[in-house]
Amino acid sequence: VKLYTYMMAPSPRRVRVFAAEKGIEYEAVEINLRAGEQFSDSYELVNPDCVVPALETDDGEVITEVNAICAYLEELQPEPTLYGATPVERARALEWNAKVEQQGLLAMAEAFRNSVGGLKGRAVTGPVGYDQIPALAERGAKRVGVFLARLDERLADHEFLAGERYTVADIAALCFVDFAVRAGVASPEGHAHLVRWHDAVSARPSAGA
Amino acid sequence: VKLYTYMMAPSPRRVRVFAAEKGIEYEAVEINLRAGEQFSDSYELVNPDCVVPALETDDGEVITEVNAICAYLEELQPEPTLYGATPVERARALEWNAKVEQQGLLAMAEAFRNSVGGLKGRAVTGPVGYDQIPALAERGAKRVGVFLARLDERLADHEFLAGERYTVADIAALCFVDFAVRAGVASPEGHAHLVRWHDAVSARPSAGA
Repeated sequence: VKLYTYMMAPSPRRVRVFAAEKGIEYEAVEINLRAGEQFSDSYELVNPDCVVPALETDDGEVITEVNAICAYLEELQPEPTLYGATPVERARALEWNAKVEQQGLLAMAEAFRNSVGGLKGRAVTGPVGYDQIPALAERGAKRVGVFLARLDERLADHEFLAGERYTVADIAALCFVDFAVRAGVASPEGHAHLVRWHDAVSARPSAGA
Repeated sequence: VKLYTYMMAPSPRRVRVFAAEKGIEYEAVEINLRAGEQFSDSYELVNPDCVVPALETDDGEVITEVNAICAYLEELQPEPTLYGATPVERARALEWNAKVEQQGLLAMAEAFRNSVGGLKGRAVTGPVGYDQIPALAERGAKRVGVFLARLDERLADHEFLAGERYTVADIAALCFVDFAVRAGVASPEGHAHLVRWHDAVSARPSAGA
């Protein structure tokens, strides 16, 4: 399979970590978002939403959206599962994956895309230009802080977000936390359970993907 | 199973339509969001995020988040599948489900929650209060219009969003379109393929759920 990716972006990193956990190999095609390569005619043919990641299967099907790609890779290679082993475990993994997306990654994207100079006029991903909204950047940053505390509370009595097993939800949260730290918006410091978890998931070889 | 829901809200409707398609029965517990019942002590014990839907299983497990609940119900009763029958079909269903969430439902929520008088100080769902951002309401409404055109384009050569089968993606899109119409933000009119699809999915008995 072929993966369209960009080293610095959190969404494609979720897929890279997922694939690394499973030992799935792929041909990586780097789309330099900073240089605007996602808007090139050739990439717009791959993904009209002009975002990474996108996965091209060996049959030439292009799959976009992190959750669709990860579910496809899980079917391609079910073991080790990154979704859980029982219906309730799987529900917990999807539940926390959704919470991290909505309360974490999305808030972080709001904070980042609505404040960074290089994204003026491109506050929303995709081919349509939208102006930055400074008040939204501020609100996003506040929500990031709130959600770090929520993660800490959850991890006080669970080894991983979905329970006793590492899942897609941990991958989403790792990419969220590292994005927040790199962008200077927030840090897990001061949240002991979150730090314990972050150290553990960061020590897995997949974290380098 | 027991479903915490609210008749007027699009997120719990996604679960109700999903259950209706499968003929899954549940005990409905109405949480009146307009009256603030989601913030009651008793409901905060059910779901600390103070949102509906939430599903309580017969074993007393509470599952939150639409995608987690729907995946759980799919396991409870696999037929008829609402996720597709092959790995690529399932990927398409999750892919379009994600696009509808991010580009449709989220944009619509931005338009609605940041403009309606009754939601002053509660522009984001959940227990933490956030001020409305008028510029975000405006941007959300614009994005809703852009995404309706995107759906129309997709449906020009596909019977349903994920392909030739009705899936969770259609349920998400139905709830999005009806939410946009009811809130007076946008309408499918003028988009012939979207109207054809909307008539078809609205004619299914599940649409009344």
